[in-house]
Amino acid sequence: MAHALHLAERGLCTTQPNPRVGCVIAHGDDVVGTGFHQRAGEPHAEVYALREAGERARGATAYVTLEPCAHHGRTPPCADALVAAGVRRVVIAAEDPFPQVAGRGIGKLRDAGVMVDVGLMREAARELNVGFFSRIERGRPWVRVKLAMSLDGRTALANGKSKWITGEAARADVQRWRARSSAILSGSGTVLADDPRLTVRLPEGEAFAPPLRVILDRQLRTPAGSHVLDGSVPTLLLHGAAASGADERFARVERVALAMQGDVLDLRAALALLAGRGCNEVHVEAGPTLCGALFAAGLVDELLLYVAPLLLGDGARPLLQLPTLDDMARRWQLQVVDQRMLGQDIRLRMRPN
Amino acid sequence: MAHALHLAERGLCTTQPNPRVGCVIAHGDDVVGTGFHQRAGEPHAEVYALREAGERARGATAYVTLEPCAHHGRTPPCADALVAAGVRRVVIAAEDPFPQVAGRGIGKLRDAGVMVDVGLMREAARELNVGFFSRIERGRPWVRVKLAMSLDGRTALANGKSKWITGEAARADVQRWRARSSAILSGSGTVLADDPRLTVRLPEGEAFAPPLRVILDRQLRTPAGSHVLDGSVPTLLLHGAAASGADERFARVERVALAMQGDVLDLRAALALLAGRGCNEVHVEAGPTLCGALFAAGLVDELLLYVAPLLLGDGARPLLQLPTLDDMARRWQLQVVDQRMLGQDIRLRMRPN
Repeated sequence: MAHALHLAERGLCTTQPNPRVGCVIAHGDDVVGTGFHQRAGEPHAEVYALREAGERARGATAYVTLEPCAHHGRTPPCADALVAAGVRRVVIAAEDPFPQVAGRGIGKLRDAGVMVDVGLMREAARELNVGFFSRIERGRPWVRVKLAMSLDGRTALANGKSKWITGEAARADVQRWRARSSAILSGSGTVLADDPRLTVRLPEGEAFAPPLRVILDRQLRTPAGSHVLDGSVPTLLLHGAAASGADERFARVERVALAMQGDVLDLRAALALLAGRGCNEVHVEAGPTLCGALFAAGLVDELLLYVAPLLLGDGARPLLQLPTLDDMARRWQLQVVDQRMLGQDIRLRMRPN
Repeated sequence: MAHALHLAERGLCTTQPNPRVGCVIAHGDDVVGTGFHQRAGEPHAEVYALREAGERARGATAYVTLEPCAHHGRTPPCADALVAAGVRRVVIAAEDPFPQVAGRGIGKLRDAGVMVDVGLMREAARELNVGFFSRIERGRPWVRVKLAMSLDGRTALANGKSKWITGEAARADVQRWRARSSAILSGSGTVLADDPRLTVRLPEGEAFAPPLRVILDRQLRTPAGSHVLDGSVPTLLLHGAAASGADERFARVERVALAMQGDVLDLRAALALLAGRGCNEVHVEAGPTLCGALFAAGLVDELLLYVAPLLLGDGARPLLQLPTLDDMARRWQLQVVDQRMLGQDIRLRMRPN
C-alpha cells in the first residue's frame, strides 16, 4: 500500500478534479502490475495496473489507495474490471465518499466473491486527497493559506515594500503548493498592491493542471491591465451583486456575483461555489484582511507559513487582521504538522486544533 | 578533543566568571585521566586530569579545550603542572585570550620541550565559551535576547495579558538558558507589567551559579515589594544619574548610576559595566522597547525565539519596537543557528549576519 500511495502521489498536480489514486497488483511478494491516475478523463489507477498484470492478475491481490469506482463515469467501473480480471483479493486504504461510489465499489467486489479489506494506511490515503475528501464530505474545499513574514510577524514595510522577504528556495516551494491546488484565491487589495500573476511556475517538464485563478473583488476594483485579467489561465472574479455590468476590463475572465454577508462577500458562499466547480484544494495568497477574515470565520484548514530570519519592526505591516481578543483562552490555536528549513527560511505547516 | 569538550560542558552553569574547560590525558588509545573545571576558585580541568593520570601522565598527550594558564591566579599555573607531570604533547583547541595567558601558556610548554598543537576543534571550543571570548576580546558580554511570541509575532494581548503563550517544555528550556548565563537583564517596564522573579528554577540536584539580576531602571520606578527587590539573588539596578538618593525600597539590591545617551540609559555603558564584573553571557528577558533598542543599536549577538503555534491578531502587542524602515535593504537580517520543536512550540536560535 505504501508503494501504491507513492504511485498516487505522482498525480499530485494533474488529477484535478479527481482524487490522486495508486494501485499495485501483487502475487505474494511479486509485483505484477502498477498504475496511478494521471488526468481526469484518462483511465483510473486500477486499469493501468490490470493492463500491466495481464493474465497474472488472476488470483492476485490488488492494493488500491481509494475504493474502486462502481459507476460509469468517463471510464467504465474499476470494480467490474477487477472482477473480470480474476483478482482474488482487494485491499483498499480509504472508502470513496463520492455519492456514486460510497461503498458500492466494495459491495460489487464482495458480491462477486472477491475478498475485500478496508482501512490499511487509511490516514495517509485520506491525507493525500485531503481536498477531495473535504469537498465531498464537507461541501467545501480544503483551504490552505500561504503567508510569508519576518521573524516579528511582518509581511511588508509600512510603505508597502515587501519584495524578497523570503529566499529562492521558499519561493520555489510555494510554486509546488500552488501547482497541487485546484484554485489560487486572492483579493482585490492584493491585486491593487502587488499585481501578482497567481500562476504556477515549475521547472520545465513538470506537468500540472493550471489552477483556477479566483479574485474576491466586491466592488470590481481590479484595474485594467492587471495580470490576473490577462486570460492566460481560467480566472474567476467574485463580486458583490451591485457591482455587475458590461466592462471591457473583464473580457478574458469570468465574473460571478456572490452573496454578501453584511458589508463583505460571503466567504462560505465563495467556498461552496468553488466546491461546486470541483475545487479540492484552494491555495490562498492574500493580504491581512482576507486571510484574517478566513481565520476569524474558522474557514482555514491549513496554514503554510514561511518565516524569514529578519526583523522589520513594529511599524511594518501586520500578518493578519483579526478581531481584538481580551482573553488568552480565545486565541486561535494551531498544531504544527511539520517544520523545515528552506534555505535560510523556515517553513511551518499548521492546522487548527 | 570531542571528549574534552563534552567534559567542559559539564561546567556550563557553574564556572562563572571562568570559562568552561575540559581536559583528557591519553596514552595512544587509552584515556588515563579526565577532568573539567567546575567552579571559580577550584582546580582547573588539567589538575583533575593529571591527578587521575598520576604516573601515567609521563609521556602522555593532553587534550585541553583552552590554552593552559601560565599565571598564578587562585590556583598555580596549569602549564607548569603539565610540564612537571612529564606530559609529552599538549593539543589545545583554542588560545586563551585572557591577557595574563594569551600565548604564554603555549610558550611555557614549548620552552619546556613539550610538543604543542593548537586549533583542533577550535570553533566548537570558542562556541562553548562564546561569552568568555566576547568579554575578553570585545570588552562586552555575549548578549542573548529571549523572546516568546505567537505565530503572528505578538507577545501579549492588547490588554497586556500574556500568560502561557508558550508551553511547559519551552518554559523549562528557558530556565536552562538562564542558568548558563552570568546575568539576566530586564527593564523596569517589564518589572511593572509582570513582576518577574528573573531567577533560575532547575530540577533538584542540578547545580548552577545564580546569575546576577540586572534591571535597567532609569527613573527608579521599580515598586516596593517587587520580586526583583527581594534580595534572594544578587541584584543590580542601573539608573540615571539624577535618580539616585536614599530609598528603603532598594535595601537589598545594589544601585549604580549609569551614563545616559540622550533620553535613555547608555546600553553600551551598561554592557561594559557588566563585562567589568565578569559577566560572560547576558540573558535578556525584556519588553519590546528594551529589546528593540538593543537590536537597533546592534548589540544583540543571539536571538532565542520561542514561537507558539497560535494567532493573537494585529491588535495584540508587537514583538519589538524598531525604527521604521523605508527600504527592505535596511532590514535586520539574521541567520538561523538551530531550530527545534519543544512540545508544540518552535525554538529558533539566530544570530545577526
